[in-house]
Amino acid sequence: MAGAAAAVTRRAATLLLSSRFRTPASRVASLIPIVGASNRRFVCASSVSARTAEPAEAAAQLGETVKEFRKRLRIDEVKGGPDEGLDWVGKGLTVRGWVRTCRVQSSVTFIEVNDGSCLSNMQCVMTSDAEGYDQIESGAVTTGASILIEGTVVPSQGAKQKIELKVTRLVVIGRSDPTTYPIQKKRATREFFRSIAHLRPRTNTFSAVTRVRNALAYATHKFFQENGFVWVSSPIITASDCEGAGEQFYVTTLIQNDTEDNNFNVSKIPTTKDGKIDWSQDFFGKPAFLTVSGQLNGETYACALSDIYTFGPTFRAENSNTSRHLAEFWMIEPELAFADLNDDMACATAYLQYVVKYVLENCKEDMEFFNTWIEKGIINRLNDVVEKSFVQLSYTDAIDLLVKSKKKFEFPVKWGLDLQSEHERYITEQVFGGSPVIIRDYPKEIKAFYMRQNDDEKTVAAMDLLVPRVGELIGGSQREERLDYLEARLEELNLNKESYWWYLDLRRFGSVPHAGFGLGFERLVQFATGIENIRDAIPFPRTPGSADF
Amino acid sequence: MAGAAAAVTRRAATLLLSSRFRTPASRVASLIPIVGASNRRFVCASSVSARTAEPAEAAAQLGETVKEFRKRLRIDEVKGGPDEGLDWVGKGLTVRGWVRTCRVQSSVTFIEVNDGSCLSNMQCVMTSDAEGYDQIESGAVTTGASILIEGTVVPSQGAKQKIELKVTRLVVIGRSDPTTYPIQKKRATREFFRSIAHLRPRTNTFSAVTRVRNALAYATHKFFQENGFVWVSSPIITASDCEGAGEQFYVTTLIQNDTEDNNFNVSKIPTTKDGKIDWSQDFFGKPAFLTVSGQLNGETYACALSDIYTFGPTFRAENSNTSRHLAEFWMIEPELAFADLNDDMACATAYLQYVVKYVLENCKEDMEFFNTWIEKGIINRLNDVVEKSFVQLSYTDAIDLLVKSKKKFEFPVKWGLDLQSEHERYITEQVFGGSPVIIRDYPKEIKAFYMRQNDDEKTVAAMDLLVPRVGELIGGSQREERLDYLEARLEELNLNKESYWWYLDLRRFGSVPHAGFGLGFERLVQFATGIENIRDAIPFPRTPGSADF
Repeated sequence: MAGAAAAVTRRAATLLLSSRFRTPASRVASLIPIVGASNRRFVCASSVSARTAEPAEAAAQLGETVKEFRKRLRIDEVKGGPDEGLDWVGKGLTVRGWVRTCRVQSSVTFIEVNDGSCLSNMQCVMTSDAEGYDQIESGAVTTGASILIEGTVVPSQGAKQKIELKVTRLVVIGRSDPTTYPIQKKRATREFFRSIAHLRPRTNTFSAVTRVRNALAYATHKFFQENGFVWVSSPIITASDCEGAGEQFYVTTLIQNDTEDNNFNVSKIPTTKDGKIDWSQDFFGKPAFLTVSGQLNGETYACALSDIYTFGPTFRAENSNTSRHLAEFWMIEPELAFADLNDDMACATAYLQYVVKYVLENCKEDMEFFNTWIEKGIINRLNDVVEKSFVQLSYTDAIDLLVKSKKKFEFPVKWGLDLQSEHERYITEQVFGGSPVIIRDYPKEIKAFYMRQNDDEKTVAAMDLLVPRVGELIGGSQREERLDYLEARLEELNLNKESYWWYLDLRRFGSVPHAGFGLGFERLVQFATGIENIRDAIPFPRTPGSADF
Repeated sequence: MAGAAAAVTRRAATLLLSSRFRTPASRVASLIPIVGASNRRFVCASSVSARTAEPAEAAAQLGETVKEFRKRLRIDEVKGGPDEGLDWVGKGLTVRGWVRTCRVQSSVTFIEVNDGSCLSNMQCVMTSDAEGYDQIESGAVTTGASILIEGTVVPSQGAKQKIELKVTRLVVIGRSDPTTYPIQKKRATREFFRSIAHLRPRTNTFSAVTRVRNALAYATHKFFQENGFVWVSSPIITASDCEGAGEQFYVTTLIQNDTEDNNFNVSKIPTTKDGKIDWSQDFFGKPAFLTVSGQLNGETYACALSDIYTFGPTFRAENSNTSRHLAEFWMIEPELAFADLNDDMACATAYLQYVVKYVLENCKEDMEFFNTWIEKGIINRLNDVVEKSFVQLSYTDAIDLLVKSKKKFEFPVKWGLDLQSEHERYITEQVFGGSPVIIRDYPKEIKAFYMRQNDDEKTVAAMDLLVPRVGELIGGSQREERLDYLEARLEELNLNKESYWWYLDLRRFGSVPHAGFGLGFERLVQFATGIENIRDAIPFPRTPGSADF
């Protein structure tokens, strides 16, 4: 470990400081070889040591340069290539990771090591003459233990992999008591894994979900950046009255938990004369909430920078214990200036195809794992998304189609009523054979106030992108850019116009047609991995009654 | 606008639906030409129209394909190249954007249009024979108005730009009343701009900050992704007892704002018998907070996937009204497994150099703007960061150096006391001439419990990266991976060991040396733009008493 070396460095440096005549720097350098350190500075050091240096100059010779950062070699880089590692045969290799299994046979021991860079383990083959074999004998190499293995890459005899590592040296870094380690070979339930959310990324399923989630996030940034969109961080805490107060979390410093001295009482909450909370004494001077959407804020930036996107957490204090809802989830909300609903649909389609394609190309091994173990056929389903044209149809046509289907639905189908999950699934899974479908031009009564009214005066330029299994993945609209229409709509809905002063300003000063959409990132992860419960699509899920870790 | 076209589409589609015999699709296509729509489907449509199609099949012919998404041409793409647009001379061009200025001269009118894609405006030159000149005469082309301009690119006579647009057609999209538009030519204070945070991105300064902020964010993702790190979203809401409750915001659904019927009273907060808040009735069943750091959660993923980073919002309910503090800010927190403090410093250095280099290369125009108007010399300062080796020295050496400087400091300098801003600035600005400096191995008493104890038993493997002007930009450490050391430290500090069960589990099962750091993203934006107040480095700043928009 570097601790000892660092201590030496420090002692050496202190010595240098305390003796007025400096030790030649080369001696220090020989004590602690530093990768990438330039020697130039050392020469300077000795060249000034004879004269009385200025404090600043003298000090400058004290420091050492920071070593060069090098990407650590991981198993993925060895086994992830087209050769699956065959180009590494004959080369020496050091692997650091966690033991997945250790099988001791009479003449040889197989250790499967995983470092999280990919699904594949490095199969390490060890004979009793290798250094550190005593660790095998002492039983220290158990599932979950962290180890360092040095060896030579050789072709593998097994069918499961092309190469394996012939071990020359093994070091156990951190042990793992097999009697208490919670991840056992026996399959556990997803629910159990949620109770050990700090360890579950050490399993195949959750490490694969994490890598695909990462790929989806990066592909999201790549898509928008390559298309000239600017990432804008919309605020998380907001005291804006624009957000409906229904399903929001309050953010406050007015209440506190009982501390050790047990002295916090509800009576300590500051109140006005009539017993109501005195918000003026809260941190923000008024009620503040966790955001439910960054859209309105995003629009302000689109009306200045043309095209923007947000990608951040949003919140719903909704008491839903379903496999589709989280109290905290990440949202992607692009907003396009000088754009209409057609541009919006085109962007949503291109975005979805881009990120799905990115995952198929960059997470092959993980996707094959999902295809085998989580959802058979998912790769074909995703290939369809990339290759097929998306179909769009109007809400009116969709209703017509559902009525004509003569299928019995649980919820009624009638123009003016919102589509339910069963209807959406019927359309995308049955009618369009598993291809994503966009439904557009919904009745204005079932959509938000800011959506642009169509010329029929009954519908708004809204669109929902539906996908098989997940249902609505993306919801978007062209925004009402006409001040008079927007004000009339706010009045119709009894919304307080004054609260929206800044949102209306965008229509007062240089208003432009603009459109955008929102996508729940965890739904996208579900869609791309086939994972059934949204709680398994985010590292630490927050749901009613649960915010541990 | 597309609204009309969409209505036509809809009507046409309805017509198709209602008539049992379908109109040949080619007629629809001729009504609404759709870019990128494939004709194949239309052929299919007519080929099945003669027989009684299955509902599903019939429906499939109803939809239209979504049009192809094409990156919109923006001013940056015309003027941002090495030629500054000269390669566009003679070509036709349509520009959509907002009027910055409109100068009507006797024979010619100059309109400066900005679309937010870059700092540069497109200078549009219009004579009275161009279509839409009546809009100039009627005074509709004012600062802030949105317009569409068609014209031909010609070499510019002016010295400020290489090209300009000879206008053939002008359309005012959205007017802007010059008497009420808040952004006037007269320079306003930054404070005023914070009060119009929804419009300030329309100014040079704030649009440039937004673009550089975006570049820094994207470069952050690129750096970590290219080095094999996995992005992990650490939770925002947490009920984990690990976080110190001192400066945290509470997240709750127990309190509500007075609604219109004015019926919410403090007495409605559920309490236990002794008058304390009954947390069991809160959304998460116990007190929940906004996170102050994702590090501990990040460690759990690093101990499974090797190298990870978080990039998300964090919060401090600190009542500081300074130019360096926000209640809500974004943090980047990488965590490296199988790494020590030297690796950590190397990573922090490489990261900072990478993102700064990225901004210098990709935001040239914006950086020149900052160099001229915000902080003279900032480009040189940033070039130094990219080119110079970073120096590291121990806290002990730093104290020695400060003592020997004989400089009068406001705060005392003594081994064991934390370095104050004045000390940090002296070291980086005076001693090391403006180069970033890393101070390492701080006394354990002034650092967090999770930092790895050095062999001297007095210091921990912590590091702070200091930069001129901003001070501490990055703080990191090697984490204590030894269970016994960590437990002893928790006990020493009177922290509740049980609360840390999952954090300690990482040391119980396959513990590995690991290290990481945290970087306040808005400080980085300040550092890279020279913007003085951190409230101007984030779109919608949250500070005591202020969470508008």
